[in-house]
Amino acid sequence: MKRTSYADMPCPMAQALERVGEWWSLLILREAFRGTRRFGDFERRLGIAKNVLSARLKRLVEAGVLERRPSTEDAREVEYRLTAAGKDLLPVLVALAQWGERWVYDGRSPVRFINRHTGAPVETLAVRDADGHVLAARDLKLAPPAAAETDAAA
Amino acid sequence: MKRTSYADMPCPMAQALERVGEWWSLLILREAFRGTRRFGDFERRLGIAKNVLSARLKRLVEAGVLERRPSTEDAREVEYRLTAAGKDLLPVLVALAQWGERWVYDGRSPVRFINRHTGAPVETLAVRDADGHVLAARDLKLAPPAAAETDAAA
Repeated sequence: MKRTSYADMPCPMAQALERVGEWWSLLILREAFRGTRRFGDFERRLGIAKNVLSARLKRLVEAGVLERRPSTEDAREVEYRLTAAGKDLLPVLVALAQWGERWVYDGRSPVRFINRHTGAPVETLAVRDADGHVLAARDLKLAPPAAAETDAAA
Repeated sequence: MKRTSYADMPCPMAQALERVGEWWSLLILREAFRGTRRFGDFERRLGIAKNVLSARLKRLVEAGVLERRPSTEDAREVEYRLTAAGKDLLPVLVALAQWGERWVYDGRSPVRFINRHTGAPVETLAVRDADGHVLAARDLKLAPPAAAETDAAA
């Protein structure tokens, strides 16, 4: 299916989706976060068709969220590793999972995230401002960056 | 394009994507968060084809994140409003937008979120545990819910 690109939308969310919003892409990243690195392992663990997996991995590499490199175990094998940009998608994946826990599993999810060192449960992600207030959509406004920041960035 | 369903995966994130992961769905929700309610307004603001918009809205209503109801302004018109489950997707959308701000716009995004009442910037979402520690993927573990919680939920 030919789809419209979001590439021309001047919106950080559209730009993020342009890179990681395709069907399967976030599940491939989930597997990468779980330590999956090899094509055959992604294929088997996700039950995804080879041609689709191949296309998605290629796009994720182009988007800079995965990198392709020789395996540390066998240099003839290729592996896919999360880049810094890829690792920075963690809050997106955890927010999606928490939404699923709440609204699909009604709090009775088969799995949940914990701190592996202490067993402490992960907090539900919430949107907060610099003063620590939790914000709902009605409290948010999209604004151009403050003049000072624009100057600093220029 | 026929796609595989994630419906059988016992994973809260796959289940979330099954509901809101289709191409366009999150941008439709972004518009809903910005106050868009009418079919024609979604169509114009997103530049999306009528048949695709219609299919996506139908699925989002079925998934329980939008509800369809008579317009408050003109009862002959239909409008689409976020449900509680829909509003609860805010952290997902903000996390995606913040990723785009950082990795696509390199911190020089054309827009950013602020608290509309105070002007305070929105904090970058981070995964934290109940003790307040920021966690990276390597600190996370997926675990079945604790026995006490399972009992409470039963």
